[in-house]
Amino acid sequence: MSKLNDQHIIATLQAYVDAVSGDDVEKILALYTDDAVVEDPVGSDAHVGKEALRAFYQMAIDSVELMELEGSVRARGKWGAAAMKAHLKGIDMLIETLDVMEFDEDGLVTRMTAYWGDNNMVAS
Amino acid sequence: MSKLNDQHIIATLQAYVDAVSGDDVEKILALYTDDAVVEDPVGSDAHVGKEALRAFYQMAIDSVELMELEGSVRARGKWGAAAMKAHLKGIDMLIETLDVMEFDEDGLVTRMTAYWGDNNMVAS
Repeated sequence: MSKLNDQHIIATLQAYVDAVSGDDVEKILALYTDDAVVEDPVGSDAHVGKEALRAFYQMAIDSVELMELEGSVRARGKWGAAAMKAHLKGIDMLIETLDVMEFDEDGLVTRMTAYWGDNNMVAS
Repeated sequence: MSKLNDQHIIATLQAYVDAVSGDDVEKILALYTDDAVVEDPVGSDAHVGKEALRAFYQMAIDSVELMELEGSVRARGKWGAAAMKAHLKGIDMLIETLDVMEFDEDGLVTRMTAYWGDNNMVAS
């Protein structure tokens, strides 16, 4: 039976921000397929595959103190999306991002696109 | 000179929710290119072109009392995204949506995808 449903998607986005906050790269990678594509921020060169994602997320957790959902997760079909706040380490700043994830039938994330720009780096 | 920049994108998403709240279909349509594609909710059949968008948005404004941004607009390159709340008419319910818009160089919206599902229809 497919693991994919709205509750699974909502739980995955919560698990994602928890894993980023907990500096747990392996837990982040476990949410993704082996050939997943991460584009963060949107328009930048995508990171493709687990090893590229590992390098990207190691850098991310080194700079993010706490990541939290902002409002509720939106979930439908194979898509999940949520606004998030990434509080940075060692500086009173946060990045307001908005992450859209696409899932496969096994409930793993195949693509993540993060929408944020210069105006979304704000004082915390 | 291209009209497209982050401030234009932020202003357009604000103008969008204002036009929906103001029941102003023409102001909504003026934000879009003639061949724009609207997928609302994600995964449903897309509305393509101004006449299809007119029919869709006429239905939308007939059911939405007030649409407001939830948190700040995310803007970068040709993309804008924001969480939104659509308060329905005649019932104490709202839809939490998350709309992603893609722009052309003239600053018009070429594609809008709205992320929301059954779990995002909540009491207001």
